[in-house]
Amino acid sequence: MRSRSKLLVLAALSVAPILADEGKWTPQQVLELDARWLKQQGLELPVSRLWDPKRGTGLLAAAVGVPGCSAAFVSASGLVLTNHHCLFSLIQEHSTPQRDLITDGFVARSREEELPGKTMRVTVPRKFTDVTQEVEAATPAGAADLARSRAIETKQKELVAACEKTPGNRCSVGVFDGGLQYVLIESVELTDIRLVYAPPRAIGEFGGEIDNFRWPRHVGDFSMARAYKDGKPYTPEFFFPISRAGVKEGDFVMLMGYPGRTYRSLTATEMANERDFRYTLDREILGEWIKLLEQSTKGSADGSIAVAATLKSLNNSHTRAEGQLAGLARGALIDKQKATDDAVMKWAAGKPAWAKALEAKKELDRLADERRKMGPHDYLLTLVNAGSLTLRDAAILVRLAGERQKPDATRDPGYQIRDMRRLQAALERDQKSIFRPSEEALLSSWITRAQKEGIAAARGADARTLLGATKVDQAVERSKMFEETPEQLHARGDPMLELAFTLDGALREWKARADARDGAVARLRPAWRKAVIAHAGKPVAPDANSTLRVSFAHVKGYTPRDGVTFTPHTTLAGMIEKNTGEEPFIVPPSILEAAKKTKAEKIPVDFLSDADTTGGNSGSPVVNGRGELVGLNFDRVWENVANDFGWNPDVARNISVDVRFLIWLLEDVQHADHILREMGVKQ
Amino acid sequence: MRSRSKLLVLAALSVAPILADEGKWTPQQVLELDARWLKQQGLELPVSRLWDPKRGTGLLAAAVGVPGCSAAFVSASGLVLTNHHCLFSLIQEHSTPQRDLITDGFVARSREEELPGKTMRVTVPRKFTDVTQEVEAATPAGAADLARSRAIETKQKELVAACEKTPGNRCSVGVFDGGLQYVLIESVELTDIRLVYAPPRAIGEFGGEIDNFRWPRHVGDFSMARAYKDGKPYTPEFFFPISRAGVKEGDFVMLMGYPGRTYRSLTATEMANERDFRYTLDREILGEWIKLLEQSTKGSADGSIAVAATLKSLNNSHTRAEGQLAGLARGALIDKQKATDDAVMKWAAGKPAWAKALEAKKELDRLADERRKMGPHDYLLTLVNAGSLTLRDAAILVRLAGERQKPDATRDPGYQIRDMRRLQAALERDQKSIFRPSEEALLSSWITRAQKEGIAAARGADARTLLGATKVDQAVERSKMFEETPEQLHARGDPMLELAFTLDGALREWKARADARDGAVARLRPAWRKAVIAHAGKPVAPDANSTLRVSFAHVKGYTPRDGVTFTPHTTLAGMIEKNTGEEPFIVPPSILEAAKKTKAEKIPVDFLSDADTTGGNSGSPVVNGRGELVGLNFDRVWENVANDFGWNPDVARNISVDVRFLIWLLEDVQHADHILREMGVKQ
Repeated sequence: MRSRSKLLVLAALSVAPILADEGKWTPQQVLELDARWLKQQGLELPVSRLWDPKRGTGLLAAAVGVPGCSAAFVSASGLVLTNHHCLFSLIQEHSTPQRDLITDGFVARSREEELPGKTMRVTVPRKFTDVTQEVEAATPAGAADLARSRAIETKQKELVAACEKTPGNRCSVGVFDGGLQYVLIESVELTDIRLVYAPPRAIGEFGGEIDNFRWPRHVGDFSMARAYKDGKPYTPEFFFPISRAGVKEGDFVMLMGYPGRTYRSLTATEMANERDFRYTLDREILGEWIKLLEQSTKGSADGSIAVAATLKSLNNSHTRAEGQLAGLARGALIDKQKATDDAVMKWAAGKPAWAKALEAKKELDRLADERRKMGPHDYLLTLVNAGSLTLRDAAILVRLAGERQKPDATRDPGYQIRDMRRLQAALERDQKSIFRPSEEALLSSWITRAQKEGIAAARGADARTLLGATKVDQAVERSKMFEETPEQLHARGDPMLELAFTLDGALREWKARADARDGAVARLRPAWRKAVIAHAGKPVAPDANSTLRVSFAHVKGYTPRDGVTFTPHTTLAGMIEKNTGEEPFIVPPSILEAAKKTKAEKIPVDFLSDADTTGGNSGSPVVNGRGELVGLNFDRVWENVANDFGWNPDVARNISVDVRFLIWLLEDVQHADHILREMGVKQ
Repeated sequence: MRSRSKLLVLAALSVAPILADEGKWTPQQVLELDARWLKQQGLELPVSRLWDPKRGTGLLAAAVGVPGCSAAFVSASGLVLTNHHCLFSLIQEHSTPQRDLITDGFVARSREEELPGKTMRVTVPRKFTDVTQEVEAATPAGAADLARSRAIETKQKELVAACEKTPGNRCSVGVFDGGLQYVLIESVELTDIRLVYAPPRAIGEFGGEIDNFRWPRHVGDFSMARAYKDGKPYTPEFFFPISRAGVKEGDFVMLMGYPGRTYRSLTATEMANERDFRYTLDREILGEWIKLLEQSTKGSADGSIAVAATLKSLNNSHTRAEGQLAGLARGALIDKQKATDDAVMKWAAGKPAWAKALEAKKELDRLADERRKMGPHDYLLTLVNAGSLTLRDAAILVRLAGERQKPDATRDPGYQIRDMRRLQAALERDQKSIFRPSEEALLSSWITRAQKEGIAAARGADARTLLGATKVDQAVERSKMFEETPEQLHARGDPMLELAFTLDGALREWKARADARDGAVARLRPAWRKAVIAHAGKPVAPDANSTLRVSFAHVKGYTPRDGVTFTPHTTLAGMIEKNTGEEPFIVPPSILEAAKKTKAEKIPVDFLSDADTTGGNSGSPVVNGRGELVGLNFDRVWENVANDFGWNPDVARNISVDVRFLIWLLEDVQHADHILREMGVKQ
C-alpha cells in the first residue's frame, strides 16, 4: 500500500475540490483524503475519530457485519440495528402459523424475552493489516497461474490461521482489485444474537416487490437484535448515538458498511461477461424460479412461510439483474468503460514504464474471451447454491465429505474446521425452508437446464424420482450424513447424493478453471490498475469486496426523468396515502390510529442521499457529521443499480429509512420506552 | 345580470386578495373583477383590451370555437390554431391508405394546397346580450314544469331566429347555472375551413392513451387550418400575436375558450346522480366498446382508419370517467359539497329572504331522487349517439322525418331548417367511419344492454340480422332517406328504421321527462344559487356551458404524491428519452435528426399551469399578460379531472403544448417559413 498511499496523498492535496461523492473508501483511505475537503463536506468530527491510524480502528468499526448485510451498534449493551430483511431468517426461525412473528412483528419487553437465533452472527472488525508484501512474497516467481492461485490461497489460509490463534478472533484476507492489495482483517465474531424488535412485515416490507428499488418509498425496513458474548450483552468499543433531529435536504451524511461486489475495475470486455453470464441469466432463470415458487406454494400457508426467505432473496436478485441490465444499456456503461480503457491505453502507449500494464490489459481481455465459451455452463453450476435446497445440501455434504479427508490447511475455503459449526447450523436451518412441491419445481428446472448445457450429473435425472428416494431432505438423516465419509455416503445408495458426487467433479473442474483464471488475474489486474490510477491522477476507491467501507454523501433528491423531480424525503402521510388494505400496501390499524392520535403525518419515513453503495450495504448505518445515526440504508434507486459498473452522479442515490420513523414507531406505536432509553433517545 | 353584477363588484372590491385561481369567468365577469388584482396577477393589458364593455367584444373573442373544442386566430388572414385531435376529422377526411395524412402529417406549401373540409367549422363570437328578463317574462307565472320548459325553449328559438336574420349570424342562447342567467350569443359561423398544417400522428398523439391525462407529457398536440369566407381568407377582428419568448415557471397566463360542462353548481344529491349514471356507466359501457372496436378491427388497415375517430373519442371519455370517479372518491367531493350545501342551509335557515331558496334546494334534491329511478335506462337511451353509427343515423333520420312535419319554430332544437346542412354533412361524413364488423359488435352490445333495461325497441332485435337487411349504412340510400317522410321510411320495410321508430317513442318520452325536469330546474336552481352566492360573499363563476370563458392562472408544477414533484415544463430531450420506436412512443427520424442538428434538446414541449378548465377547452389559446399566445391547452392532469365537481388548488393543473415547440417544428423540421412569417414569428 505504501507506494499507492503516497500517490493518493499527493492527488488528494492537488485535486481535492473536484472530488465527487463517488467512492467506497477503505478506512485507511479516509486518512489519505484531504481533511479540509471532508470538513467542507460537513464532517464535524476530527478524521481520527473515524479512524485512528495508531490503533487501526475508530467509529467506523461501529458498523458491523451480519450475514449478507451491514449493521450498527447503537448502545453500549450490544444492541444492533439493521434492516428487517437482514434479520429475516432470525424472525422466520421463531415464526409458526400459530405465533406468526413475520406478520405480527415482535418486541422483547425484557432481556429474558429476547429470542436467540441459530445461525445469525455479528462480525465486529478489530484490526486491519496490509499483507500485500507477504502474499506477493509467497508467490513463486514465474509460477503457472493455477499454482500461483493456490499459493495465494495457501498464504491467505496461513495468515488467517495465525490470526485466529488469538481467542475469539475471526479473520479474513481482503483482496482489493484482484490483487492490487491484500489486507488481513481481524474481527470478533459474535454468534449469540437475539431478536429484540421486528416491525410487522406490513411495515418492514411495505411496498414489497412493487416498490423494491423504487422511489418514492415508505418502508420501515429495520429490526433490532442484541449481541451476547459468554451469555452477557456484548460491550462494543464503538457505537453510534442516535440523532433525534434527523437530517434535511442538503445535509452531510456518511454511510458505513460492507458493500459486497462491484465491477468498476474490470475492463469493458470483462464487464460484458458479467452482463451476459450473470445478469442476463439471472433475469431469465431466477425469473422462472420465482414463478415456480409462487405457483408451488399457492394456497399453502406452510409453503408460503417455508419459501419466504428464498423467494425474497430470488426476487431481490432478479429485480437487481433487471436494473443492472437496464442501467448498463441506458447508460451505455460498457461503451463508456471501453472509452476509458482506450484513453488509458493511448496515454500509456509508448511509455516504457507502462508496457507491462498494456500487456496485462490485453491478457485480461483474452482471458475474458476464453471465459465466454463456458459462460452459461459455468453459471448453471454456481446456481446449485440458489435453487433447490435438497440439491444444494447434497452438494455441500459431498464436498464436505471429500474435503474432510484432507489436512485442514489444504481444504477448500468454507470447508475448514473453523467453518464446521456454521455449515452445520446452515444445513439444520434449511429444514424450515424445505417445501416439497417447491423443491420439485426448482430441481426440475435446474435439471432441464443442466441437461441442455451437457452437465453430466443431470443426465437422465428426474426431480420427482430423486426427491422420492433421497433422505437428504430429512433433518435427522442429513445430520448423520454431515459426519460421514464419501464411502459411507456412497453406501447409502441415495440417488441425490450420487448426483451430487457426479456434480462435485464438474464443480471441482470448474473451480480449477476459475482458480487458474484468478491466479492470472492476480498477476495482471494490479499491473493494469496501477496504470489506470496513475492516469486518473486522483484517489481511486477499490471495487467493493465485502470489507468495511465508508461513503461520504449528502441528502439529495434527483430527476428520474424529464418533468419529474424526486424530493429526498417521504412521510408517514405518503405511506397512509399508499394504503390500499391489500398486500403489499397495508398500513396496520395500530399505525393508522397512532398517526391520527399523535398527528404524526409529517414524520419522515425514508430519504435519499447520494452515497456510493451496492448489495451488502443493506443495513448500513447512515450518520451525520457528528457521527450520530440518522438512518439505515436499505436500497438503491432503480436508475442507480448499474452503478456497480460505473458512477453517475445524476442518479446515484441510495435509500435509507429515517431514524425518526423508528423512534416514532417504538415510542408511539409499540410503547417500547425501554429500548429508546437504552439508545439514549429518552431519559 | 344587474343585481348580481352589483353584488360581484362589491365582493370583488372587498375580498379580491383572497381570490384564488378558481373560475371560468364570463367576459362580462372579467369587467367586474378587481382590475388591480388582475394587474397583480400579471395582466399587463388594460382590462378593456380583453373585453370592451361598450362594444361587447375584445381580445377574448380571438378565442373561437371548433366542434367540441376551442381554437385561436393567430393571423390577420384567418389562420386558426387548435389541437391536433380537434382537427382530426379534417385530417382523417383526406387520409387514405395510399396518402396517409394521419400518419405522415401535412403542410400546405401554398394556399392552393390547403385541404378543404366538409364538416369543420369555426364559430367566432361577435356579441353577448343578457336576455334573462326577456326569457323570464316569456314564462307564464305558475305554469307546469313541462310548459315552463317549452316556453323557455320557444323563447330561445325566437331570440335565435330573430338574431339569425342578420346575414352570416349564427346565434345561441347560453343558459347559466340552470337559468340564473340567459345570454344571447351572436357569432359568425365560418364553414369553409381548410387544413394548413398537421404534424405526423406520432407527434400529435405522442404518448397516446398511455400518457393521456398524465404528466410528464411530450405531445405536439396542435394543427392549423385557415378559415375562408366567400372564397377568401377570413379577416378576424382579433387575433393573438405569437410570443417567441414563451413562459417560465411562475409566469401569468390567461386561458380562453369554450369549456363544455361542469357540475359545481349542483347539490350533493344531484352530483351523486352524475357519478352513478354518467361516469360509472361510461366506465363500464365505453370500456367494453373500446375493447370491441379494437378486437373488430384487428389486422385491418381500413377498419383501423375507419374507427380511429370513434375510438379516440370513446377512449377519451372512458379515461375521463375513470379520472372523475377516482377524483370524486379521493377528494370526497360529494361529501364536501354536502358540507357546503349544509352550511348554506344553516346560514339561510330562519331568514325570510331565503325561505324560497331553502324550499328550492329541497325540491332539487327530490327531483334528483326521482331521476335516480330511471338512471341506467335513460343513460342507455342517450348512448344511441355514441356507439353504432348505423343505429345513430337511423335514429337521426327517423327523428328528422318526424320533425320536418312540424312548423320550423316548434321543431326540436337541432332539427330546424338552420340545422339541415350540418346534419346532412354529418350523415355523409359518417360513411368514412362505418366498418361493418365494428358496427355489429357495438350494436349487439347496445341491444343486449337495452333489452336488460326493458327498452322496447331492442326486444327481439339481433345486430347481424339488422345490419344484413338495412340500407341505412349505404351512403346513397341514406342521402335519399334524408329527404323522406315517416310514411316513405316505413314503406321501405327497413328493420333498422323500424327499430329507430320504436326507439324514437322512447326518446321522446325521455325528452319530455328531461324537459319537465329542466323546467323545474329553471325555476329552482336560480333561487338556490342566489343563496349560495350570497353566502359565499365573493364572485362565483357559473358552471361551464360551452360559452366563452377565461381563466387566470400561472405556470406551476405540483406534487402528485409524497416524495414526487412534477416540474412545469418538459423538453424535447424528454420526448426523445421516451422514444421506444413503438407506438405510441415513436419519435420520427426527422425530429431526431433535426434535434441533433439544431441542438434543440432543451426546446420546451409541454407545460403545466393552474388554469380552470374542462372538456371543450381543448385547443384553448394560452396567452401571456401582454395577450401573446404562448401555448395551446390540450388536457388536464389525472388528479384534476374531477375538478368538474370541485376545485382543488393543489392539483388543479391543465396541460398545454408550448408554442416554442410548434415554432421549432415549423422552422427546423418542416421548413414552413411561410407559416411562421404569416404569424409574425419570422421576418
